[in-house]
Amino acid sequence: MPGAGCRVPKMRNGTRHAAHGTMKPAKRLDGVEISLIRQINALATSESLNLGIGEPNVEPDETLRALAARAASSGSWHYSPNAGALSLRKRIAARLDFDPKTEICITAGTEEGLYSIFQAYVGDGDEVLVPNPGFTSYPTLAKLAGGVAVPYDIEPPDWNLNPKAVLSKITSRTKLIVVNSPSNPLGSIASRQTLESIASAGPLVVSDEIYREIWYDASPPSMLGMSRNVIVVDGMSKSHSMTGLRLGWIVAREEVMKPIIVAHQYIATCASVFSQQLTELIFDAKEWNASWLERVRAQFREQREAALYSIRHELEADIQPPAGAFYAFVPVPACDTVIFAKTLATDAAVLVIPGVAFGSGGEGFVRISFAATAETIGVGVERIGRWLRATGR
Amino acid sequence: MPGAGCRVPKMRNGTRHAAHGTMKPAKRLDGVEISLIRQINALATSESLNLGIGEPNVEPDETLRALAARAASSGSWHYSPNAGALSLRKRIAARLDFDPKTEICITAGTEEGLYSIFQAYVGDGDEVLVPNPGFTSYPTLAKLAGGVAVPYDIEPPDWNLNPKAVLSKITSRTKLIVVNSPSNPLGSIASRQTLESIASAGPLVVSDEIYREIWYDASPPSMLGMSRNVIVVDGMSKSHSMTGLRLGWIVAREEVMKPIIVAHQYIATCASVFSQQLTELIFDAKEWNASWLERVRAQFREQREAALYSIRHELEADIQPPAGAFYAFVPVPACDTVIFAKTLATDAAVLVIPGVAFGSGGEGFVRISFAATAETIGVGVERIGRWLRATGR
Repeated sequence: MPGAGCRVPKMRNGTRHAAHGTMKPAKRLDGVEISLIRQINALATSESLNLGIGEPNVEPDETLRALAARAASSGSWHYSPNAGALSLRKRIAARLDFDPKTEICITAGTEEGLYSIFQAYVGDGDEVLVPNPGFTSYPTLAKLAGGVAVPYDIEPPDWNLNPKAVLSKITSRTKLIVVNSPSNPLGSIASRQTLESIASAGPLVVSDEIYREIWYDASPPSMLGMSRNVIVVDGMSKSHSMTGLRLGWIVAREEVMKPIIVAHQYIATCASVFSQQLTELIFDAKEWNASWLERVRAQFREQREAALYSIRHELEADIQPPAGAFYAFVPVPACDTVIFAKTLATDAAVLVIPGVAFGSGGEGFVRISFAATAETIGVGVERIGRWLRATGR
Repeated sequence: MPGAGCRVPKMRNGTRHAAHGTMKPAKRLDGVEISLIRQINALATSESLNLGIGEPNVEPDETLRALAARAASSGSWHYSPNAGALSLRKRIAARLDFDPKTEICITAGTEEGLYSIFQAYVGDGDEVLVPNPGFTSYPTLAKLAGGVAVPYDIEPPDWNLNPKAVLSKITSRTKLIVVNSPSNPLGSIASRQTLESIASAGPLVVSDEIYREIWYDASPPSMLGMSRNVIVVDGMSKSHSMTGLRLGWIVAREEVMKPIIVAHQYIATCASVFSQQLTELIFDAKEWNASWLERVRAQFREQREAALYSIRHELEADIQPPAGAFYAFVPVPACDTVIFAKTLATDAAVLVIPGVAFGSGGEGFVRISFAATAETIGVGVERIGRWLRATGR
């Protein structure tokens, strides 16, 4: 395993801002900074090739733009109910056995959705099981709510979620289990059996399924309906390339949902009604929507091939092909991937995200996003390879 | 004073939801429920006249709709920086002596802005001074952050903010002072002198200026730049009738702003880029914007006259005319304005907000919104008067 045997230095995550006297920030922010992903992106110059981004390189087509213009020029601009427009909630509930009135909540993106869930359920000292490696926000959201993130390990080289690794971490303090499939940054998909055994373990489960429409061989299973404990977080951002429009949703049983809506009310009032109206129009345009998703997946399939080819030839790494999302988690010969990624950004003008940004289990790896053109991927990975050889690694 | 001498019953604010075992919500939500305003609105039927609403009864004109269509069909849908698009921050900073890069943060509405500020600064046991009567969210935001809301009284009949009432409540635990001028629900405007003495008191001050464009005689003073401690919260929702588009902003000195942006990143990532782009286009359409604001104020002036006339003639109350915002805070012959407002909603089909929703100082009053047509206001207040006489009050 790359990185094995290395002394892994502590993650450097910026310096603490000056704060004293009455202006001292709340303790919950101690050590919480602008994320490492944002820090790496801040190193970008006009020459940089960006393989660090977490949003699709797909632009809205004419139909999507026309739907947006329609949503903007004809829709309401008034507040929607806190949980979202009932008409949209009905469309989301339509294919599920859930009550649109009480079991769906529209959020200002999945980040605000996750934040609301954590605020609703996690209190001082509560434990939240989070994937390691896993999305950077989960441990911070636990901390911001006064809780403690307890990482469960996901192992290379296949990065398959092992339910035993999760279940063995459950204690009487476990409040939430976070599952993310397809995984950011790993690209792996958890099997239905794995998800079922986690759903039935007891604690509330937050299943972050934002990447579920982006897959390569088979549609990933959802945790929806697996147990009354399950809270599913989903949205349009990644599938419809509208990350900036901040539209997500939560699906959970009424008794689980109620406090989430209360928290959400005070955090965000409601999601943007423009984004809600656009989402409704997208759901209604069924045929276009199906073909759009096909096209998005086809584009990512090509980009995945380009990434796998370059990674194999330039970095001599033979990784398991990601089954979903648009990330490759690639071993690199470095003991400190933060220094590695920062040096790479300045010396080779390529942005990748240090694996350790996703937890200690990511040390020795970098996340290479293939949400970029095949050319950018090819040239970018080639630059990394050349830089590695030039520095004798 | 109405209500004086009454035994004021405890505010009834819904029942606690069932919660047990592992699904128990976090302690911060104890006693926090869907707001009383939402509860009253939930009593609306097709026959109800709504004088309870907190958003302008102004629809976007053709120009505003066209700007929205342009923002939707041509703008970017990618994430903006956490603090918002720099181009928008520059426009906001243009007329101020603030640095757009570090001293402006665009938020998903002012609610999310306020929430971020409270999360950034308020910790366990910290005291937050809040107006009483005052906007319902402030004490809840303090509680959700682990703090304690300490109300400072604003007195009838003129509801003028008295700086002594604020300053006398400052202790070593005071973390934030919240000022709201023009005031929701009081309609009063604080003088520059009052604001200056609060700004120089020492603690951080959050100045919620969301109603500042809606005034009747003179433009309300802003706390902007009064001291390095001041955090101004503002936005387009009320002035441009786009409450559902969730666009607000925070202006504060860099050292004060830094932790707010960190909190905001984890709460919302960024505000909707559509709303950000629309706001930029509004700022750029200077002439149209000036005339729009004139028209909005003219409409509210007429509605204020209608409200004052009806309140005087039907309710025999001679209140101080509100100087800003679109609310009249009106004395009613009732010991419990929650029961009063709920009975009124079901028996007379008129929605008003119980004064006690805004704190103990609101008992004996109701908030009548004049964000409604003169006709709705006239018929609505007449119904209240008739109902009062019929019940012998």
